Amino acid sequence: MKGTMKVAVMNGVGKMGYTERPIPQPKDNEVLVKLEYVGICGSDLHFYEAGAIGGHVVKPPFVLGHEPGGTVVEVGRDVKHLKAGDRVALEPGKTCGHCEFCKSGRYNLCPDVIFFATPPVDGVFQEYVAHEADLCFKLPDNVSTLEGALIEPLAVGFHAANQGGAELGQTAVVMGAGCIGLVSMMALRAKGVSKVYVVDIMPKRLEKAMELGATGVINGAEQDVVCKIMELTAGTGCDLVIETAGNEITMQQAIKGAKKGGTVVFVGYSLKDNANIPMNLALDKELTFKTIFRYRNIYPMAIEAVAAGKVDLKNIVTDIFPFGDIQNAMDQSVENKANIVKAVVKIAD
Amino acid sequence: MKGTMKVAVMNGVGKMGYTERPIPQPKDNEVLVKLEYVGICGSDLHFYEAGAIGGHVVKPPFVLGHEPGGTVVEVGRDVKHLKAGDRVALEPGKTCGHCEFCKSGRYNLCPDVIFFATPPVDGVFQEYVAHEADLCFKLPDNVSTLEGALIEPLAVGFHAANQGGAELGQTAVVMGAGCIGLVSMMALRAKGVSKVYVVDIMPKRLEKAMELGATGVINGAEQDVVCKIMELTAGTGCDLVIETAGNEITMQQAIKGAKKGGTVVFVGYSLKDNANIPMNLALDKELTFKTIFRYRNIYPMAIEAVAAGKVDLKNIVTDIFPFGDIQNAMDQSVENKANIVKAVVKIAD
Amino acid sequence: MKGTMKVAVMNGVGKMGYTERPIPQPKDNEVLVKLEYVGICGSDLHFYEAGAIGGHVVKPPFVLGHEPGGTVVEVGRDVKHLKAGDRVALEPGKTCGHCEFCKSGRYNLCPDVIFFATPPVDGVFQEYVAHEADLCFKLPDNVSTLEGALIEPLAVGFHAANQGGAELGQTAVVMGAGCIGLVSMMALRAKGVSKVYVVDIMPKRLEKAMELGATGVINGAEQDVVCKIMELTAGTGCDLVIETAGNEITMQQAIKGAKKGGTVVFVGYSLKDNANIPMNLALDKELTFKTIFRYRNIYPMAIEAVAAGKVDLKNIVTDIFPFGDIQNAMDQSVENKANIVKAVVKIAD
Amino acid sequence: MKGTMKVAVMNGVGKMGYTERPIPQPKDNEVLVKLEYVGICGSDLHFYEAGAIGGHVVKPPFVLGHEPGGTVVEVGRDVKHLKAGDRVALEPGKTCGHCEFCKSGRYNLCPDVIFFATPPVDGVFQEYVAHEADLCFKLPDNVSTLEGALIEPLAVGFHAANQGGAELGQTAVVMGAGCIGLVSMMALRAKGVSKVYVVDIMPKRLEKAMELGATGVINGAEQDVVCKIMELTAGTGCDLVIETAGNEITMQQAIKGAKKGGTVVFVGYSLKDNANIPMNLALDKELTFKTIFRYRNIYPMAIEAVAAGKVDLKNIVTDIFPFGDIQNAMDQSVENKANIVKAVVKIAD
Repeated sequence: MKGTMKVAVMNGVGKMGYTERPIPQPKDNEVLVKLEYVGICGSDLHFYEAGAIGGHVVKPPFVLGHEPGGTVVEVGRDVKHLKAGDRVALEPGKTCGHCEFCKSGRYNLCPDVIFFATPPVDGVFQEYVAHEADLCFKLPDNVSTLEGALIEPLAVGFHAANQGGAELGQTAVVMGAGCIGLVSMMALRAKGVSKVYVVDIMPKRLEKAMELGATGVINGAEQDVVCKIMELTAGTGCDLVIETAGNEITMQQAIKGAKKGGTVVFVGYSLKDNANIPMNLALDKELTFKTIFRYRNIYPMAIEAVAAGKVDLKNIVTDIFPFGDIQNAMDQSVENKANIVKAVVKIAD
Repeated sequence: MKGTMKVAVMNGVGKMGYTERPIPQPKDNEVLVKLEYVGICGSDLHFYEAGAIGGHVVKPPFVLGHEPGGTVVEVGRDVKHLKAGDRVALEPGKTCGHCEFCKSGRYNLCPDVIFFATPPVDGVFQEYVAHEADLCFKLPDNVSTLEGALIEPLAVGFHAANQGGAELGQTAVVMGAGCIGLVSMMALRAKGVSKVYVVDIMPKRLEKAMELGATGVINGAEQDVVCKIMELTAGTGCDLVIETAGNEITMQQAIKGAKKGGTVVFVGYSLKDNANIPMNLALDKELTFKTIFRYRNIYPMAIEAVAAGKVDLKNIVTDIFPFGDIQNAMDQSVENKANIVKAVVKIAD
Repeated sequence: MKGTMKVAVMNGVGKMGYTERPIPQPKDNEVLVKLEYVGICGSDLHFYEAGAIGGHVVKPPFVLGHEPGGTVVEVGRDVKHLKAGDRVALEPGKTCGHCEFCKSGRYNLCPDVIFFATPPVDGVFQEYVAHEADLCFKLPDNVSTLEGALIEPLAVGFHAANQGGAELGQTAVVMGAGCIGLVSMMALRAKGVSKVYVVDIMPKRLEKAMELGATGVINGAEQDVVCKIMELTAGTGCDLVIETAGNEITMQQAIKGAKKGGTVVFVGYSLKDNANIPMNLALDKELTFKTIFRYRNIYPMAIEAVAAGKVDLKNIVTDIFPFGDIQNAMDQSVENKANIVKAVVKIAD
Repeated sequence: MKGTMKVAVMNGVGKMGYTERPIPQPKDNEVLVKLEYVGICGSDLHFYEAGAIGGHVVKPPFVLGHEPGGTVVEVGRDVKHLKAGDRVALEPGKTCGHCEFCKSGRYNLCPDVIFFATPPVDGVFQEYVAHEADLCFKLPDNVSTLEGALIEPLAVGFHAANQGGAELGQTAVVMGAGCIGLVSMMALRAKGVSKVYVVDIMPKRLEKAMELGATGVINGAEQDVVCKIMELTAGTGCDLVIETAGNEITMQQAIKGAKKGGTVVFVGYSLKDNANIPMNLALDKELTFKTIFRYRNIYPMAIEAVAAGKVDLKNIVTDIFPFGDIQNAMDQSVENKANIVKAVVKIAD
């Protein structure tokens, strides 16, 4: 496909704009995807507000966005499993395939990963992207490209649930009811966990958690979270906690609310590099802590879960902004966290 | 067996004494063991110095000691696998056998455990003890009752190594070269890990680590521990860290020195309940943290490892005190930590 | 409780009768349960027809039945978690709690197990039973004692699914749509597997499989089972097969239909001790075979799955016979296997 | 490097010869290796004798040999971790890096694998080979290129031991004392298993097993193998069996000699596609069967095990043939299986 495409760029902290770039040509092992929806992630907002995350510093003009869904419009000549017209979810990280991490199936830890919207690699708030076909997963007829865009955060939730050893019979608690907390809750439910409680301090988010299938919610601003967990578990604590809030207080609650022999999965980064953790208590209970970095080998399972109706993915979205309104999309998302649980940019129909 | 036996009791903080008590009668499922050696554990010293550990408060007279080795002198009538004259190592915790933890093989987490020398349950600095036969493990001919006494701390080392997923091909680091650090190092080596480095700040302990089979040592008072680990691992960090020092600094070093996807096993309790942990870094590396509480299902394996010459257990002992000198044994152990790596009380020949 | 109770006994091959026995007195750690429903298992029928299974030979009068549900009427004095009036499912095997299998959580392998209706231990086709309270699991309000009786076979299905590593995203096939095949299918579904196909040759059983939630069925009398599995999986084969038919042909189909790296769980015993297995093909695909013997640590999870509506347990029952009609219940179950998928004896209201 | 090299080719069943071919040019991601030693594997002999293994049919002229060790003489421009002069062991299978098996770390199951000496892909009985640098593993100074060639079969032994869950404390039995049986035994020992018994019927092989570190041997021609295993394990059976003989009798012995809850790893292919397996007994014991296909992610660990002195790899070799004598090397290996445990072709100094 020839011609140019519209690209939304971050021109500086708090400043979005647009530019035109050539439509990329897919290589032999790539497909060209016309993007339809791209989710706005917390990390996009962090780059937008702060200009950097850790050592990853934005150099404008920079393209944010790494949660894409769209339709294949061209395929490279080595591509066999996709054809033009296929709707796809795109896994945003390309890995080397040859390092010890890739070889052993933990490709998310590949030191040479190239990941959308992680400086200096551009993201996909743009009309088209050429991407490795093996990272583009065909959506079944009953899964929309809006849901396709949301497979990316859902993959985080599933990776957290997998790493935590989630299974039927457990009682689980999710700390935080932002997007990642909610997808974690839904991943737990999809994997068979029947009792999943969600903790947050924002009423709108807790309502959303209930709407999406939480067994119950705890408002940490009003209730003693650990007491409530103990009450819900006849005093034993919960088998599994997924901590997505990235907050020292919720990290501590996670450990205090966990059952002997239980597992806490840490997902949320915190503003401070260090956290004050009750390690002696963790030792007394012989807890396991898992942490997760992105995800691996999840997309097909996550898509199937949506297709099978196990995850009510589209209803996590509270706001859809048109591509032409991206400055507003970013600003609103930053300013109105209490109400915008999950925003998505609609790139095209 | 009738008559009385000599029992060493803690009469108050820093005060040891002796008393006479009746020799216990073994129940049908118990054996009576004439004790020969009982190790002095860090927790014994802590009770001796502070009078309590957490909620466990010593009420004098209290019997310390939970690392016993001895010889069976009488067997209860239901006991089949032991006979008088068998030399045994005694696992100190009796569990209920019926709770969900016992049923699922994690009996160390049994809420009704009765454990030697954990108040209010007396320990075994005494001449005889009646104990469940199933917790008394026969020693092969080439394993002494001194080594039998040391199976208890070795079991901690093996549980740490097991929980950490230790295996051939890994590079491991042990933080702390006290008794538990040293047995952890030896457990790692016995399980096939060929590269095990030990970190401490006391030269005598590091010498002992080398003597017992460490691949190398790092003196944290003289070297930058994390830099040294990176140097030893070509910059990747180590696969497994076992943290036995219970110190915030070594906990942080453990996390900083670990490889992406690696595991840190926390074993040592610290004086402060909380520790300041670099959680964001742990997330970046997708680390797993395991903690351990005592051990489970380890004694037969640990005894076999000693019998097979895989663990040089007796050479961990730096000091043997006669039973009649127990006040001195405790005082020396408290005061001279730099030189007394592991002390044992010789109860009888 | 004093008095006698009615007990159904097998007086010989194909001969049922009744006798009166004293109502048992619960020991301190036991409860007395008034039985309401007891399922008829394939092994009951096998003893009834053949007089023995392997080395377990029936000596009449013998009591069959090991799938009981009922209501507690008396509790021993050490029992804390149950009270008269509680409705319970009874796990039929008492284990020693002290052997290496019990200690490591694999109590189903305890060599000293005492299991209902496995000669010489009597079963529970009778009005009352005294049983270890720890093996009696309270049913929530929305789970009936009929379902309570069926927790026993469901536990087999869950153990098979657990051992097979069942999880969301897999495609699974169950060989055999008898009771164990059906509960295995439901266990897989409850654990999150969304695609579960069931193979049998009896139309009524396949209908029942669809009714209870199978994704699809394959009639092995009409279709090439392996071809059909390949067709359903785009030629890759299925991730997990649970073989419950105990038939050499279905065992071979299981292996041929499995995906590279997949798992086959063998559940069903066959009439011949040996089976002709395509081992070279298994090696080519690097398959894992698991086998299961009864179950362990499953009852609470299984009860919760029923309570949560994840398993449609009661609809597996095709026939309920009154206690007074037990000869007919056994005869019908033997003769009419094509129509009686699962029969239960109603002991009392 | 320019010029031609000498290549040994199979010109038909039982017929070896030589030809000249151009020395290959390494691609950017490859290295050119001057081969020094190439082992003769049982599969080479099978192709040589029978002209095919399953669907893999030799079309002459075909190059056998897939166990190579040599020295790097040229490096492609993208290669960073190797340089000319480095001595290396070569992993013989190139995989796609993109299929679900590669992505999940099970690259040995990649359907697009290209593997030395598996028709139609030529092997390496030749002077040079250009190979992906990521599949060439540098040998430490104390590991020879003869040992480098033997890393390939050792990797099979380690994969078997890994899949079997080998660990300290177990009693293991290896069926068959050919090359793969012996490397399996040594892998088990290196992973910490202290009791490893080896079964064969050829005295020379059993002697070799003892020489290489077996705890004991059982001559199946003279002793009842299962009885002997039970005698050695106090009647419980062994925790782990690795079956390398590929013989129905030893497969049955493996299952009969295994402990309740134990694992049997099937490694050896048999002449018949099917084997008559005592499945009911396997069910009674709740055994796990693992099978292995080649290996994955093993080379670095295997090389380290040799370097650390945990595996006495070079002494497995009974015969070294010069490259110019390859016809004799093949013929002798076929005819004299009782004495030639492992033969290697010396390609160059």
